[in-house]
Amino acid sequence: MGETALKSKQKQITYEQIMNLEKQERVHFVNSLGGFKSIGLIGTQNKIGQTNLAIVDSIVHIGSNPPLFGIIFRPAAYERHTLENILETSFYTINHINENIFKQAHHTSARYVREISEFDVTDLNKEYKNAFFAPFVGESQVQLAMEFKEKIELTINNTVLVIGEIKAVYFPEDCLQKDGFLDIEKAASLTCSGLDSYHKTTKIDRLSYAKPDKKITSIL
Amino acid sequence: MGETALKSKQKQITYEQIMNLEKQERVHFVNSLGGFKSIGLIGTQNKIGQTNLAIVDSIVHIGSNPPLFGIIFRPAAYERHTLENILETSFYTINHINENIFKQAHHTSARYVREISEFDVTDLNKEYKNAFFAPFVGESQVQLAMEFKEKIELTINNTVLVIGEIKAVYFPEDCLQKDGFLDIEKAASLTCSGLDSYHKTTKIDRLSYAKPDKKITSIL
Repeated sequence: MGETALKSKQKQITYEQIMNLEKQERVHFVNSLGGFKSIGLIGTQNKIGQTNLAIVDSIVHIGSNPPLFGIIFRPAAYERHTLENILETSFYTINHINENIFKQAHHTSARYVREISEFDVTDLNKEYKNAFFAPFVGESQVQLAMEFKEKIELTINNTVLVIGEIKAVYFPEDCLQKDGFLDIEKAASLTCSGLDSYHKTTKIDRLSYAKPDKKITSIL
Repeated sequence: MGETALKSKQKQITYEQIMNLEKQERVHFVNSLGGFKSIGLIGTQNKIGQTNLAIVDSIVHIGSNPPLFGIIFRPAAYERHTLENILETSFYTINHINENIFKQAHHTSARYVREISEFDVTDLNKEYKNAFFAPFVGESQVQLAMEFKEKIELTINNTVLVIGEIKAVYFPEDCLQKDGFLDIEKAASLTCSGLDSYHKTTKIDRLSYAKPDKKITSIL
């Protein structure tokens, strides 16, 4: 993989050209540009026990002390059932997606009405444990129990950043390494590109903590 | 890869246990939990032309119309040179990381003083083009020219969400597909897990737009 080969036929697309694309083409293109995405299935239920399951591709690490993650929710009403449940009950789960369930996970993005649970439609298993209010995905290998902390309106385009705190994590025991690193590739977690392209990963290396004038080395 | 195998020895770690971990162990652990991350090199310069290059692992898609991406910046002062340059000049670049440059990219996270450019330290090439103010990484295969739009203080832990708009995109011509999807795997872009684990990807499938009662099919 030479640099020359990579850069041989570079194309430029400007802001104006992006804005002039047909809508679906623009959505596919822009969604591809930020790199591979953090995806997960968000499990919730409302106060009367109606469950909901939604795939998200915008999970972002906010901090480790305390352990916080954010998710961006878009304005469309049909995408807001999960958000409504989170705001109503304060609890939700984040469940990693693996190769066994990625088609079902993708299917949760269909526009179902509020009364239909994506758990039922996709046949993914609701898993309740340790008295946590929201349902986990039974088939998921890494599961986070989350408590809502803050909602921030991004007025620039009417999206919402939801920040939550980890209350518990469930994961395959043999994926945890001595320094605290959880090997989610070993746990078979997938990543996504664009709106619909699912990828498994191959580790290249783990690298040493970077310091000025110190050579970066492998810590595998 | 059976579900039984995946779930055979599940371990639970609670919020309290996370908070009781030694600091570096907690940072490694929590950073692993959100899934694979969107990584990139952020190229900036200040008004007097001092350049800066910083790896980030928190790029998040905010919207496509207009095309917006967010990045989370942490409170530590040495991580703020990039943020200061963005706020001073309004312009920055996001450059995808490939296998040829991931060690250099990782090295930019070392705590250099403001006067030292990570471009110089790592020998990555500054590339200026089409009169855009901020430098691109010459070795990067997908490059975004960004204009600062908004800074949102996340008071919950003193991080900052910076939102910018895409002004131009540069990419290998043969990676663009007809429906607008940019094949960043073909462009050799990498993803990251935790703080320091770099991964290449293997596409499993692209899936059809999800609709209720319609079977999900491959669109490859």
